[in-house]
Amino acid sequence: MNLDSLIDSIQNFEGVTRKKSIENVTNLLKDVYNVSGETLLAFGDDASAIDIGDNTVVLVAADGIWGKLMDADPYWAGYCSVLVNVNDIAAMGGKPIAMVNILSIDNEKIANEVLKGIVEGCKKFNVPMVGGHLHPDSNYNSLDVSIVGIAKKDHLITSFGATVGNKVLVAIDLDGKQHDKFALNWDTTFHKSPKLVQDQIKVMKTIAEKDLITAGKDISNPGILGTLEMLLESSSCGAIVELEKIPRNSDVSWEEWLKIYPGAGFVLTAKEENVDSVISLLKKYSIETAVVGEIIEDKKLFLTYDNQKKLLFDQEKNPVIGLSD
Amino acid sequence: MNLDSLIDSIQNFEGVTRKKSIENVTNLLKDVYNVSGETLLAFGDDASAIDIGDNTVVLVAADGIWGKLMDADPYWAGYCSVLVNVNDIAAMGGKPIAMVNILSIDNEKIANEVLKGIVEGCKKFNVPMVGGHLHPDSNYNSLDVSIVGIAKKDHLITSFGATVGNKVLVAIDLDGKQHDKFALNWDTTFHKSPKLVQDQIKVMKTIAEKDLITAGKDISNPGILGTLEMLLESSSCGAIVELEKIPRNSDVSWEEWLKIYPGAGFVLTAKEENVDSVISLLKKYSIETAVVGEIIEDKKLFLTYDNQKKLLFDQEKNPVIGLSD
Repeated sequence: MNLDSLIDSIQNFEGVTRKKSIENVTNLLKDVYNVSGETLLAFGDDASAIDIGDNTVVLVAADGIWGKLMDADPYWAGYCSVLVNVNDIAAMGGKPIAMVNILSIDNEKIANEVLKGIVEGCKKFNVPMVGGHLHPDSNYNSLDVSIVGIAKKDHLITSFGATVGNKVLVAIDLDGKQHDKFALNWDTTFHKSPKLVQDQIKVMKTIAEKDLITAGKDISNPGILGTLEMLLESSSCGAIVELEKIPRNSDVSWEEWLKIYPGAGFVLTAKEENVDSVISLLKKYSIETAVVGEIIEDKKLFLTYDNQKKLLFDQEKNPVIGLSD
Repeated sequence: MNLDSLIDSIQNFEGVTRKKSIENVTNLLKDVYNVSGETLLAFGDDASAIDIGDNTVVLVAADGIWGKLMDADPYWAGYCSVLVNVNDIAAMGGKPIAMVNILSIDNEKIANEVLKGIVEGCKKFNVPMVGGHLHPDSNYNSLDVSIVGIAKKDHLITSFGATVGNKVLVAIDLDGKQHDKFALNWDTTFHKSPKLVQDQIKVMKTIAEKDLITAGKDISNPGILGTLEMLLESSSCGAIVELEKIPRNSDVSWEEWLKIYPGAGFVLTAKEENVDSVISLLKKYSIETAVVGEIIEDKKLFLTYDNQKKLLFDQEKNPVIGLSD
């Protein structure tokens, strides 16, 4: 394997490059993200947290489903709309409590498949779809889902807490398969029991409440290292990651593996003394976790392999989001 | 004015007829709206309510902005995305705490205008836009916003509580103007101070906490009487409404007035002894309220005018949503 070409491939991966467009939106909205004074976290986390008193926060996140997925497999798109949102709340150490959806349809058959997928997802994750809005006469098909959760204010997992010397962990369910039409969709939940899948969500809350990690983020479109870079940007630090320590299902090549969107996968940072507890807690629920590197002060993400050390992301030159200013 | 033609016009109004498409969606999702056992209300309310304990509920609602509004006036579409969502929470007697948006764009100029409108709306209503999701490469422009609020479990305003003999009230801010491009958009907030606009939201919470009404709903796309019919369907009852008692700005014809989407407007039901308190509380904040009729057992909405009494909606034959089964 050639480290240079792997790095080039990740840097130019659509899941990474698409994130840059957020910068303009967040710049325009930064004036109003905390207009009421009750928003706890800045942009850049899996969900936002609103302080409602009594050590309780309400978490809110939203995800739009990619048009290509809607067209290729609407049932799976519906199912994934639940999965990705539930994982956003899990990654905050929260309990998902409800979702709403906005569905635009120009084709009733596709809409029905999407809704059946949503129903399956709600049952699998035990999170209700409580309402939404329908555009019955649109000239495209799209699905947006928002989720709400609750968490303890003093036991939130955020993307902002990584500090120099922390270990970097990648936690991922290796028991899965690539989607027939989307090789980068690493399905680890559809064939599993609702109980195990729900336990994978709950264990993140346990880890949060035991204060075992300093930061954490759900692995999403930018892949394992793109997601880690987003966490590093939020935490204003860098990391050195040893490629071969990243847990991987060996049926999948490194190039694909680093870009997959897993059914259950997180990048975490922790103090060394808590690493073993995190690993053993997650292992109970089919999530394989390993220390893959360490947080450094320099705001760069380096990847090492076979005695080489290469720069993957540099927050000055090629950030994934570029929120820092 | 001809009552028959007015009735015909409302029955065939797009804002009313479009709502029927919801039926298929709600039928498919009804299995999962309460999968966790914590959802308090059935489909059909302005927002859903999730019990989080301690007499607190989290309210969640979602609204998509109509494509035609996005194209004609993207700034106003952004502003309205805040307004309609905030009103959904007000109509539940709740406090809006945060919004998220999902924006799909094929045109950066339009997106910027939308975002500027959102910023203005957030400042006006003092509700933060805390995050969202961006589809930077879509081939259409669309904006969906979800809102979260909190309310007291034992002081919720719902659409389900109207009972026979209750008075029907229409509460609406008459100090406004029709949008230049959308005559049915009755703007009552843009020119008002943030304080007054926010007080209009808060007074609904006060009315809820004083238990002054039995049911309430935010006047939205189906207009004043279409919205009332939705409330009647949720409450499984009917009403007789006297047209000329509905508060109206006389610059606007009855036909348009009954279809407008107001900046601040609600249909409410209350016991007779509480009617005066409701009217005087709302009057303080520029909302004109009047008793326009009474709840009846027969699941029909009748409209009277000039000694005529005509049937507008019949839940058996031409409901607006048709949730009852």
